[in-house]
Amino acid sequence: MNSDILFSNIKRKRSFLCIGLDSAIEKIPPQVKESKHPIYEFNKQIISNTASFAVAYKPNLAFYECRGLAGWKELELTVEYIRTNYPDIFLIADAKRGDIGNTSSMYAKAFFENLRFDAITVAPYMGEDSIKPFLSYNDKYVVILALTSNPGAADFQYFTSGENKSLFTEVIEKSKNWGTKENIMYVVGATKASMLASVRKLIPNHFLLVPGIGAQGGDLEEVAKYGLNKQCGLLVNSSRSILYAGNGIDFAEKAANEAKKLQKQMEKILLEAGLL
Amino acid sequence: MNSDILFSNIKRKRSFLCIGLDSAIEKIPPQVKESKHPIYEFNKQIISNTASFAVAYKPNLAFYECRGLAGWKELELTVEYIRTNYPDIFLIADAKRGDIGNTSSMYAKAFFENLRFDAITVAPYMGEDSIKPFLSYNDKYVVILALTSNPGAADFQYFTSGENKSLFTEVIEKSKNWGTKENIMYVVGATKASMLASVRKLIPNHFLLVPGIGAQGGDLEEVAKYGLNKQCGLLVNSSRSILYAGNGIDFAEKAANEAKKLQKQMEKILLEAGLL
Repeated sequence: MNSDILFSNIKRKRSFLCIGLDSAIEKIPPQVKESKHPIYEFNKQIISNTASFAVAYKPNLAFYECRGLAGWKELELTVEYIRTNYPDIFLIADAKRGDIGNTSSMYAKAFFENLRFDAITVAPYMGEDSIKPFLSYNDKYVVILALTSNPGAADFQYFTSGENKSLFTEVIEKSKNWGTKENIMYVVGATKASMLASVRKLIPNHFLLVPGIGAQGGDLEEVAKYGLNKQCGLLVNSSRSILYAGNGIDFAEKAANEAKKLQKQMEKILLEAGLL
Repeated sequence: MNSDILFSNIKRKRSFLCIGLDSAIEKIPPQVKESKHPIYEFNKQIISNTASFAVAYKPNLAFYECRGLAGWKELELTVEYIRTNYPDIFLIADAKRGDIGNTSSMYAKAFFENLRFDAITVAPYMGEDSIKPFLSYNDKYVVILALTSNPGAADFQYFTSGENKSLFTEVIEKSKNWGTKENIMYVVGATKASMLASVRKLIPNHFLLVPGIGAQGGDLEEVAKYGLNKQCGLLVNSSRSILYAGNGIDFAEKAANEAKKLQKQMEKILLEAGLL
């Protein structure tokens, strides 16, 4: 998927919501736990009830890997389900990979070819050759961690050079030259919404994946204020506050309500920005 | 495994060799490719022929994930094979994970509990809460990327602060306080052997995992000169130059010869250092 198609999906759905499928076996409702592939069954119900409010889904790999073979099967089934039933969904592997060049090529193969994801998150610590293998695919994106939404973001991402430049700024400035807005996106956490303004100056046209709305406390209005661009340019992620809105038989309905609430806020934002 | 046991294994085997199981389906010999679990079959033969020369094995996850379910099965079988037949092996998951706290906990579960690895490599970009979940296990190690052996290492790891401190130094100085030498190791690439001297000043007692010997061009004598400590303190990894020493019916024998060559060099180094 390229950014034009992504933007047209955003306009059609009046939403720039990404739903994080951080689906934990301990948290899913008891009646779903009984199924043969419980996480898949949970995801399927979440997806079928929320897909009209979201443009993207983002399974976090840790939640699948921690279940071993069963988890990988559930991941494959989830991807297959989305690809078959919701071909307009932008599908992000939240994997935070990154390794030496020949190894990153294997990850690219795993996520872009075998699992047919549109995008994968990557940590930039190992530099250019760890990112490059992901850039050789058409209509696929590497989503580079720039400024994350967790407390530990402060440990190294704000590490500041003699020229008063922070590491996350250096990451963006350098890596934006390794590709284009058609194969690179950036993670910029919602808990640092005001930082979005300076990020936008560096990369006015790239899409940003913004985690941290909901359970992590980020504010959607703030994010939009500083982050919107002409193509919207934002995918705002919410995971736990949607997935676990309910724990009863109506969990998927409750998830849908939460997703719809966010979609309505996003619609208002898009209208006010003249993007609809 | 704690560092005393690791050191006693090093002394007994007269080796601080780690063999990287970067086992690629395209590169394994044709006769092994026919088996039901080809990568596992390949690993098994490599391991049974090299285990007397090595103290550690390090499967790189990318090579298993790129084969989907089949690859995860092969990883599980490889771990099981090592655990059953070579209980004295230190087993490192080269996964380069790292995510927000609750997600890193899932990775810790995946690799320490389900797969019974002794250690996992982690990228430090997301800071303390991405590392902490790995530190709560007894006799398990998080191996933090400090200075890697790839060309891209220069992009951000040398990013330098106003106080003339590089990012990799900051990573070591900060993170060493999050745990102890009994639950943290560091990756320091062999292609920068002279940097090991300054790393050793910061962390005289920690074990270092040193990739880059062999295919990547690092020099073992140099590494030992700057990196050895009282407990040896080094695990030097070689992957491709051992795994693919041969491609015929005698591939495992050729791998053994390469491993033995390194073990002999290591024995000499350990003797000269008075550690044997």
